[in-house]
Amino acid sequence: MASDQIRITPWEAEAFVDYDRLLKVFGAKPLTEYEIELLRSITKDVHFMLRRRVFYSHRDFDVFLQSYIKGMKTALYTGRGPSGHTHLGHILPWIFTRWLQEKLNIDLFFQMTDDEKFWHEEGQSIELTNSYAYENVLDLIALGFDEKRTHILIDTEDIRYLYPIAVRVAKKITFSTQRSAFGFTESTNIGMIFYPSLQIAMAFLPSELYGEPTYVLIPAGIDQDPYWRIARDIAPSMGYPKPTQIHSKLLPGLGPGGKMSASKPETAIYTTDPPEVAAKKVLRAYTGGQPTAELQRKLGGNPDVCSVFKMFEMLFEEDDKKLQERYLACRTGALLCGECKAVLAERVARFLRDHQLKREKARDRIEKFLLRTKFDPPPLRSCIMKR
Amino acid sequence: MASDQIRITPWEAEAFVDYDRLLKVFGAKPLTEYEIELLRSITKDVHFMLRRRVFYSHRDFDVFLQSYIKGMKTALYTGRGPSGHTHLGHILPWIFTRWLQEKLNIDLFFQMTDDEKFWHEEGQSIELTNSYAYENVLDLIALGFDEKRTHILIDTEDIRYLYPIAVRVAKKITFSTQRSAFGFTESTNIGMIFYPSLQIAMAFLPSELYGEPTYVLIPAGIDQDPYWRIARDIAPSMGYPKPTQIHSKLLPGLGPGGKMSASKPETAIYTTDPPEVAAKKVLRAYTGGQPTAELQRKLGGNPDVCSVFKMFEMLFEEDDKKLQERYLACRTGALLCGECKAVLAERVARFLRDHQLKREKARDRIEKFLLRTKFDPPPLRSCIMKR
Repeated sequence: MASDQIRITPWEAEAFVDYDRLLKVFGAKPLTEYEIELLRSITKDVHFMLRRRVFYSHRDFDVFLQSYIKGMKTALYTGRGPSGHTHLGHILPWIFTRWLQEKLNIDLFFQMTDDEKFWHEEGQSIELTNSYAYENVLDLIALGFDEKRTHILIDTEDIRYLYPIAVRVAKKITFSTQRSAFGFTESTNIGMIFYPSLQIAMAFLPSELYGEPTYVLIPAGIDQDPYWRIARDIAPSMGYPKPTQIHSKLLPGLGPGGKMSASKPETAIYTTDPPEVAAKKVLRAYTGGQPTAELQRKLGGNPDVCSVFKMFEMLFEEDDKKLQERYLACRTGALLCGECKAVLAERVARFLRDHQLKREKARDRIEKFLLRTKFDPPPLRSCIMKR
Repeated sequence: MASDQIRITPWEAEAFVDYDRLLKVFGAKPLTEYEIELLRSITKDVHFMLRRRVFYSHRDFDVFLQSYIKGMKTALYTGRGPSGHTHLGHILPWIFTRWLQEKLNIDLFFQMTDDEKFWHEEGQSIELTNSYAYENVLDLIALGFDEKRTHILIDTEDIRYLYPIAVRVAKKITFSTQRSAFGFTESTNIGMIFYPSLQIAMAFLPSELYGEPTYVLIPAGIDQDPYWRIARDIAPSMGYPKPTQIHSKLLPGLGPGGKMSASKPETAIYTTDPPEVAAKKVLRAYTGGQPTAELQRKLGGNPDVCSVFKMFEMLFEEDDKKLQERYLACRTGALLCGECKAVLAERVARFLRDHQLKREKARDRIEKFLLRTKFDPPPLRSCIMKR
């Protein structure tokens, strides 16, 4: 399939990809000033990830915002496949999602797909992915999500919430649909084949828990888009509003290519990394610099292919003016990679020290964030959906 | 695949098939005097369905009985796809299972697969299959199952019991395994594809609920065998004893061929049929008789292809001597089809009158038979299985 050629599925994704081409392949719309102004009419200010198009494309984000403005029921939904500890690539969309939650003052439904990660990874144990789900919850809490408005569901333990909906979703999806959307083969296990019905069901769960059609916005990496295309196809026949999306680019790792990924831990910064270890990873990062300081002063560096500059742009420099100064200083050769990396290393270490303190304090608060402590499962027979 | 040629899958099955050939295709063993004597050493008498080889083949029935004799933990497991009301073809294995439960004094785990029937049948609603699950429970209670020892699980409502096990099962089964076992295609929905992991997980649930490896015997129609072949393949790697089976032949409908089936309601007798309606169905049944009474007296009938005789043999004549007399009277032309059908019609009507009284009284007792009222779900992390 076409999207294979640019290697974007939920399980394999480059960074520094041609995001414009991705839009065309996936059929999503680029984020424009129209949607951003609509959001600004509600939120007053606009998050730097929008200004800089870290979140850069969408499906019906405008419809979601109009529904919100009209006073319809709305909710946020995102999730995490807990295959290990959280790294900065994971928390990028969460930081934006937390901001949205605060500005819109609406609920976030968060899915921990410990079953999916168990199914996907050979040799992985379900006990381990389930443990990581709880570890990852600590990061969500540390980022400041609102405990009253954040409802975390863990697939293996909360399946009774999803199953009444997933059963109906599963009937509407054939193996051949999956094959083309996800690149499944004859040797894919039947857990993986069934799994999309759970990720899609979660998009419809808010409607069932609230008992009214709910407009759901999903802020997530563009690599998750195949799920939402199917979800949007089947939503009308089930009586739900189509879930809407806002897609982020993928944070590059600190190496020469690819998204930040657990498969290359030396180029990924984990929230559990000791700050000094993380700082060292930054100091060893791949940059857009010249081979020597002399050449760099003469020719300037290239921030557009630099993993260090991307970290500033996508996470660690909220001030547009300062980011622009850094960009120009690099381009003109005024800023050497060593100095630039030292600044980032210090910011990363500072972030981690603060985050890790909050993360430890979060251990007593996990229960308050779990969906199961706040909602009853949707009854099988009185779902609002069409049959 | 070979078994396709004789049209036996869980969703399509003839009766009057060549059961010997089926044994060869499925690789099960014929039931012999060895297993029957082993059972007799426990139960003292032997059910007519065994004597007559209505239950005619098995996998490791002897291993199950030896385990029972040695005092290992054992349990029974069977189930029902609640696509409608119960007919006599369904209760045939239940009657035998109830007898086994009484004689062995062990628990029966019973699965109502309302999800599967919803997935399998186009236009079917989950509300309806779920309602039928409860209707079918009434038949189980009316047949006299022991409420303390009978634990009924309804897939859609009790998924939290199965999912921790099913997740592990699903990882061990690929789409291509399914395709060959069940004849699935590219256009099969992903619910159907996932479903076998639930039917198989149920075979392992007793081990989890008891907290010790449990030898499970599954009395069921031979058409369910594809599930158990997969279950037996993967059980050792999960730390469970291989589930064992005893297979029944399929009760023919009252027409000229095929198992009793909801697809031909005029040739099926439902437990909810008014007794006089059921009697009329019997009087219109296809028999092995001659075209005229005169020819019948002269040439005799053929009970071997007669749906009426099969009803006596498999359900309504427990007395071997009387059955033999009926067989000979037919063969010699002494018994005409009209008389024979009248006797069966009266027995069927009598059975239904009695059953329907018990069935109505059962409505207050449903809760006591539900697994969820008696067990906690197995914890995800402390399962006894290997990882």
